[in-house]
Amino acid sequence: MYRPRAWIITIGYELLIGRIVNTNASHIARELTLRGAIVDRIIDVGDSIDDIVNEVRRGISRADILVTTGGLGPTDDDKTLEAIAAATNRALVLNEKALRMVNEFYSRKQLQLTRERVKMAYLPAGAIPIPNPVGAAPGSLLFADGTYIISLPGVPREMEAMLPLALDKIQHVFPEICIRELGKEIKGIPESSLAPLLRRASKKCPDCYVKSHPKGHELEKPIIDVKVLASAEKCEEAERKARLVLEELDRLLAGAGK
Amino acid sequence: MYRPRAWIITIGYELLIGRIVNTNASHIARELTLRGAIVDRIIDVGDSIDDIVNEVRRGISRADILVTTGGLGPTDDDKTLEAIAAATNRALVLNEKALRMVNEFYSRKQLQLTRERVKMAYLPAGAIPIPNPVGAAPGSLLFADGTYIISLPGVPREMEAMLPLALDKIQHVFPEICIRELGKEIKGIPESSLAPLLRRASKKCPDCYVKSHPKGHELEKPIIDVKVLASAEKCEEAERKARLVLEELDRLLAGAGK
Repeated sequence: MYRPRAWIITIGYELLIGRIVNTNASHIARELTLRGAIVDRIIDVGDSIDDIVNEVRRGISRADILVTTGGLGPTDDDKTLEAIAAATNRALVLNEKALRMVNEFYSRKQLQLTRERVKMAYLPAGAIPIPNPVGAAPGSLLFADGTYIISLPGVPREMEAMLPLALDKIQHVFPEICIRELGKEIKGIPESSLAPLLRRASKKCPDCYVKSHPKGHELEKPIIDVKVLASAEKCEEAERKARLVLEELDRLLAGAGK
Repeated sequence: MYRPRAWIITIGYELLIGRIVNTNASHIARELTLRGAIVDRIIDVGDSIDDIVNEVRRGISRADILVTTGGLGPTDDDKTLEAIAAATNRALVLNEKALRMVNEFYSRKQLQLTRERVKMAYLPAGAIPIPNPVGAAPGSLLFADGTYIISLPGVPREMEAMLPLALDKIQHVFPEICIRELGKEIKGIPESSLAPLLRRASKKCPDCYVKSHPKGHELEKPIIDVKVLASAEKCEEAERKARLVLEELDRLLAGAGK
């Protein structure tokens, strides 16, 4: 089954100096995964045009879908769309539809369109604005060199509201697929002892993604969270595949006296 | 002042499917920044040898320090050190010192050295093991092609205990620098109105990193968190530089009647 490849590029020095934790990346990764995409890279880069251009070009050459967050706001260091325009050899142009969105947002408060506010309506030529139901800056959807480039604000509340609107617009690239994740917590056996059993159990579903996450201490109080992610055309089939692995693991643990 | 460039590569599919939030990346980014490094990239990549090799090579060609997390454990999908060995054209060899660390950890519990446990003592040839005070897998410090490559486990508790041990070993690459961050919360003015004032205030310290973080709603109840990160040889000087910007911002806000 064909599954589109996705890259996520989160933009802003606040990530690189460790001021904030990148919850946007995990939220977007989860949404893309659940729609059937395979996320290949998450890249945090600063508000530098050159660095953004560099990573966007790499993303375009490797991914079907590229989602960026951050750098859409009114300040001078918000450079994402300028960089995407440069990376795709397009001009950054005033988008009339985006301008109407920005204008509507501020006019509700009787505020004028200053230079900083109009800046948020400049999109790469050919891009479609994504409405922002909770903030000022519209997002941008651009199809360039075979890749859908979605650019959303970095404010989590805004990004979370806009992501489904943007992904719905490119729903045709996602497969008709159902993804299911089943988990199991295993206590009292160290990860290093569980590993060979898990390896054997995983063979029950070679295309499942099976992973053990140690949560307790390796020896004193080992708690291992085992997760199995399975995909299939039908949801029941995806669940069945994941269950096969966990049932086999149960059998092997029982056999090992655990 | 010379400041070393750093890349962070966090390894594991659990990041790419959005199962976990990457708190390791922000913790490491903060530590590196406070020691005077400039973090240029944070990259999340899956447990694929090719992908890790690719990103590690890119990191070596661009950074003085490369910190990786994840993929050091006992399971077959823990491939980080194998990939680092391949990326630097070295063999992966049983490190006697690392083996003693692993052995000591398990022998305290009268547990044998199984294949999975011994695996954790294989490091790239020439690497130094980093002791793991809270878990089984030692870390690795390798100097290759002009870059210090530090590899730590992905379990946050283990990574956090080992990072300072590893960074202390390469303290000579960090500058004699003091970093200070001052902040100020500004209420009642939208980010788009604050932007031009902030731009002017920033001119008081061109090498400071000044950033506004919108926390409330852009219009209804705007709350903007302004942060100024300054560096200098002496801490007082770094603080003075950051304060200059905030004081100028106060003056401009007062002038604008805010």
